[in-house]
Amino acid sequence: MTWLASSVMGRRGVAQGREGSHHLLTEAAQGRYHYVYGPYADPVMRITPGDVVAVETLDAFGGAVKTEDDLPSKVLNMPFVNPQNGPIAVEGAQKGDVLAVYIKDLLPRGPQPVGTTALIPDFGGLTSTGLTHLNAPLAEQVKKMEVTPEGGVKFSDRITLPYEPFVGTMGVSPEIEAISSLVPDFYGGNMDLPDVAPGAVIYFPVQRDDAYFYIGDCHGRQGDGELCGVAVEIPATVTVQIDLIKGWSIPGVRLETEEFIMAVGSARPMEDAARMAYRDLIRWMVDDYGFEESEAYFLATQAGKMRVGNMVDPKYSLGASMLKTYLG
Amino acid sequence: MTWLASSVMGRRGVAQGREGSHHLLTEAAQGRYHYVYGPYADPVMRITPGDVVAVETLDAFGGAVKTEDDLPSKVLNMPFVNPQNGPIAVEGAQKGDVLAVYIKDLLPRGPQPVGTTALIPDFGGLTSTGLTHLNAPLAEQVKKMEVTPEGGVKFSDRITLPYEPFVGTMGVSPEIEAISSLVPDFYGGNMDLPDVAPGAVIYFPVQRDDAYFYIGDCHGRQGDGELCGVAVEIPATVTVQIDLIKGWSIPGVRLETEEFIMAVGSARPMEDAARMAYRDLIRWMVDDYGFEESEAYFLATQAGKMRVGNMVDPKYSLGASMLKTYLG
Amino acid sequence: MTWLASSVMGRRGVAQGREGSHHLLTEAAQGRYHYVYGPYADPVMRITPGDVVAVETLDAFGGAVKTEDDLPSKVLNMPFVNPQNGPIAVEGAQKGDVLAVYIKDLLPRGPQPVGTTALIPDFGGLTSTGLTHLNAPLAEQVKKMEVTPEGGVKFSDRITLPYEPFVGTMGVSPEIEAISSLVPDFYGGNMDLPDVAPGAVIYFPVQRDDAYFYIGDCHGRQGDGELCGVAVEIPATVTVQIDLIKGWSIPGVRLETEEFIMAVGSARPMEDAARMAYRDLIRWMVDDYGFEESEAYFLATQAGKMRVGNMVDPKYSLGASMLKTYLG
Amino acid sequence: MTWLASSVMGRRGVAQGREGSHHLLTEAAQGRYHYVYGPYADPVMRITPGDVVAVETLDAFGGAVKTEDDLPSKVLNMPFVNPQNGPIAVEGAQKGDVLAVYIKDLLPRGPQPVGTTALIPDFGGLTSTGLTHLNAPLAEQVKKMEVTPEGGVKFSDRITLPYEPFVGTMGVSPEIEAISSLVPDFYGGNMDLPDVAPGAVIYFPVQRDDAYFYIGDCHGRQGDGELCGVAVEIPATVTVQIDLIKGWSIPGVRLETEEFIMAVGSARPMEDAARMAYRDLIRWMVDDYGFEESEAYFLATQAGKMRVGNMVDPKYSLGASMLKTYLG
Repeated sequence: MTWLASSVMGRRGVAQGREGSHHLLTEAAQGRYHYVYGPYADPVMRITPGDVVAVETLDAFGGAVKTEDDLPSKVLNMPFVNPQNGPIAVEGAQKGDVLAVYIKDLLPRGPQPVGTTALIPDFGGLTSTGLTHLNAPLAEQVKKMEVTPEGGVKFSDRITLPYEPFVGTMGVSPEIEAISSLVPDFYGGNMDLPDVAPGAVIYFPVQRDDAYFYIGDCHGRQGDGELCGVAVEIPATVTVQIDLIKGWSIPGVRLETEEFIMAVGSARPMEDAARMAYRDLIRWMVDDYGFEESEAYFLATQAGKMRVGNMVDPKYSLGASMLKTYLG
Repeated sequence: MTWLASSVMGRRGVAQGREGSHHLLTEAAQGRYHYVYGPYADPVMRITPGDVVAVETLDAFGGAVKTEDDLPSKVLNMPFVNPQNGPIAVEGAQKGDVLAVYIKDLLPRGPQPVGTTALIPDFGGLTSTGLTHLNAPLAEQVKKMEVTPEGGVKFSDRITLPYEPFVGTMGVSPEIEAISSLVPDFYGGNMDLPDVAPGAVIYFPVQRDDAYFYIGDCHGRQGDGELCGVAVEIPATVTVQIDLIKGWSIPGVRLETEEFIMAVGSARPMEDAARMAYRDLIRWMVDDYGFEESEAYFLATQAGKMRVGNMVDPKYSLGASMLKTYLG
Repeated sequence: MTWLASSVMGRRGVAQGREGSHHLLTEAAQGRYHYVYGPYADPVMRITPGDVVAVETLDAFGGAVKTEDDLPSKVLNMPFVNPQNGPIAVEGAQKGDVLAVYIKDLLPRGPQPVGTTALIPDFGGLTSTGLTHLNAPLAEQVKKMEVTPEGGVKFSDRITLPYEPFVGTMGVSPEIEAISSLVPDFYGGNMDLPDVAPGAVIYFPVQRDDAYFYIGDCHGRQGDGELCGVAVEIPATVTVQIDLIKGWSIPGVRLETEEFIMAVGSARPMEDAARMAYRDLIRWMVDDYGFEESEAYFLATQAGKMRVGNMVDPKYSLGASMLKTYLG
Repeated sequence: MTWLASSVMGRRGVAQGREGSHHLLTEAAQGRYHYVYGPYADPVMRITPGDVVAVETLDAFGGAVKTEDDLPSKVLNMPFVNPQNGPIAVEGAQKGDVLAVYIKDLLPRGPQPVGTTALIPDFGGLTSTGLTHLNAPLAEQVKKMEVTPEGGVKFSDRITLPYEPFVGTMGVSPEIEAISSLVPDFYGGNMDLPDVAPGAVIYFPVQRDDAYFYIGDCHGRQGDGELCGVAVEIPATVTVQIDLIKGWSIPGVRLETEEFIMAVGSARPMEDAARMAYRDLIRWMVDDYGFEESEAYFLATQAGKMRVGNMVDPKYSLGASMLKTYLG
């Protein structure tokens, strides 16, 4: 038995962490991909809590950047970027519940070099933008990389980076909004947070009946902050086990691994994302682990960890975490 | 021979990383502590590059918070907080040079419980302030903790945290300004960055003759962000080896350990601190490691790490780092 | 002939500023109000460029706050606030065009006291929030005010403020997103900008066929910034003349009165909204008034005006303006 | 008798607004100008509350930009910019008091074209910076302008702007810090706020004995935000009457004209400056005008005005104001 039995999913999930049916959501079955997280699309699949789904995701460019000559400004058609699979309807999910998503596996798919990163004009952490500045944009550039689980990410002739895959964009539908898949927020979305990785359970606050789960934008790896705005983007097969926790009210995305719990904040300016992350971590410590609020605040001060997920998207996403060994 | 021989200090330092004379700066020798980083105080000591200095620092409260009943609002007298040792004049240092400070050792001193943290009204990462909001402040509270290198930080009956000490405030004097020791900036100061720890070399851009080195505010440990604004504050004996690198122009604080290099940004909003940190890391990679700028930008995107030092001080301090294994 | 003939609407509009048919969009005709700006609702009316529409709007509370005892936390049901009329389909509008909306008139409707403001927990410019801080919220409070065009806003026994009405929320549908009517952005929405007032022409960049115009959230008046988050909210009859400018590509909302032109930025942090506003004002001066970019930058520096619309919504909205007398 | 008799200075000043001795602080008498606001310089003059001082200020470039060929990057020597007159010691001033400065007159001095503005690399509201971005800087450029009280500011052959002079930098010394004259903060400094103009009384919280008043950086005029970072910079003779208010504790700069009161906030991000300004305006309304706090909050919401002083300096300065007609 793995640590999952002791996770919130294992303890409080409708399926108590037990795997149900297995499904495959192929490219063909998905058909039309989506560019917003919202309630206005028809579900592509309906599952029961505990079910396992293997999903064939496209990369954030929808596969349009095939070579280093395919400049994003030429081959992309805004706002149709960051295509998402789904929505997957989850039986029994209602506003006020939480969708628990355990990421079992994430593998690149398609011909090598399967990984893509790029400098896109007016986008990224260290560039001015045409909406806010008068400077000329940086030169556009594409970099393709071989990515395999065994061989890692071939960044250059000299540098190979570990394959540390994760899901860039994942979450549930807002209640009445349909938000661009480029945006992260309380319902998930484009958090670009490396902790959303195989081995973690991610918790999303359900906003509507059947939850409407979306997923896409897998990354072969990424540094903190996703600095230039584009990670090692890969088409992938990502396998998730989805459970449902009834009556758990959480204000935003939470996450759990064997070692730690994490709360995610997405906002601008960045300090608000950091505050939201730590604020909800403390709420969690108080609600579920018996801490006095000031004691949780003190412990977060002395032992909290902060991951900068992205510092480039319309909202920045940061994750505040606490080791389970300190939670008792 | 340690990794230090291959550090910038070891390769380019006036003393080439060799230890010179040893000095002790006791409380008594320091006499009057300082509350600004500036050029208007007389040096308390004069050293030669390569010299080693053991410094007796006070804690950030100047020792005024002796028990959990000593509320900061009662016992502190603003702006006389965060007392600093120094300035130490370094022979031969001039504007345009870099002061290299290798932290050899950091030990708590004084009677237990030697560690102090506190909730101070209107100060901290998750509190409103009386200058910006209408809300009532959080309740003031002090927590004292035993701190020993062997036994760690006794956070509570149940929780013991590792002793992972570092220097909260350290740097050189600005050229003409005298800035509160509560502020971090390009010259160092109150960065509250856990990487400024034993085993690291910190690089500060010298702004005036003799550099005028200041140090204080040692911490027994701290989480990312120093959330409530007060780490495990301890009076300490901190031992540093100080070298001088002539003619190295750097825009802000840099740092080096055996495993990685790091650039530090201090600013508000937090994204500007993050940008400054990554921007200077890329500059360093281009200037000293032969990267093309776009290649450094790409590598920082896929493999950079970001530490949130503090999210509570007048400027937030973040550190962007890159593993040396990727630098060639 | 009014100044309108010389406006962009008058010179370049499909209807060249001439009034077409007159329509009335009553509460009953509207039926179901909307809480998002998006393409997923069916048009409630179809008009031709030049047409005039009188719209019966609800106040931002949907009329639920009838007395000072109707606390928002009790009578509101998130996210169903800030109800909007529309969408009104505009014949011939396409992505890449601009919708020009001339506000002719704005009158309160319904029984007195018709104006409402409130302190809503965790919302407003000077309050902490439960998502970012640990402080207790401010006390909730409602204030009702008589509002008439002749008598002004009866703020208190002692203080009467001028009736200076404007439209808080107005704009066109995004292309594929459906965004909460609480949010302002490049397509308009909840800008809460007092210049969006009778006598002004507002320009919105069309994102989809027929534009899908929404309007609501009228205010009897408001100070700069809408400090507590709630202006003098009124149900109203607002009359607008809507024209269409083909092939005018603008990055965000612009505005024109007899005296000045204004560009609007909506973003967080506030400096980004300010930059966007001034950046687009300069673009406009360069594109349509023959300025060199640096000369426009200089003139904006010496003669630009900045209005802080709101400092409370999910994005802050600021407007940068230039007197027409300086534009030649 | 003017409105001054009813001002805080007139009612509560040691000199009750009466003029005392007249002094002239010429360039020669000043001798060495200062580049920090701090307590470490010797007073250049000592006055008594009520005294009037005419001060010969240099422009922000210290006169080094004489022609449009004198590029700032060539002729300036950082950090020696924005030279200040003073410090002027004010008899009887102590920490906890307020210095009241009534600006009587501001005249340009020196040969025409006396006004200077410039695009300085990496500085300004719409430019990236080398510390935060990878973009190339904007082209450097200087613009000289004739400036006279009668003829206004000759911006170009076609455009003449009104002469609306004000003091860009003014304030008192911090207690122990010496802060660059480029920075604004609670003690005043480089606020670049157009309301700090002839006819206004500015209130500064005294931090040390004798206050140590500094002044410089006069502007012939400026738009909101000082967009490119450089207003119509002029050397000037500025005449101020200085009074002292004992025992008035204010957290930052306040300002008063015949029509309104204003509180100033200086911070980053900009919303914090806006909050500080409105927060202190409300404090003032409560303390001195008898408002309930929530009533003041409501009134500021419906009738407050916000001036964006600068959006370019190390801290942004905004001023929140309320018409005296609403204050009773």
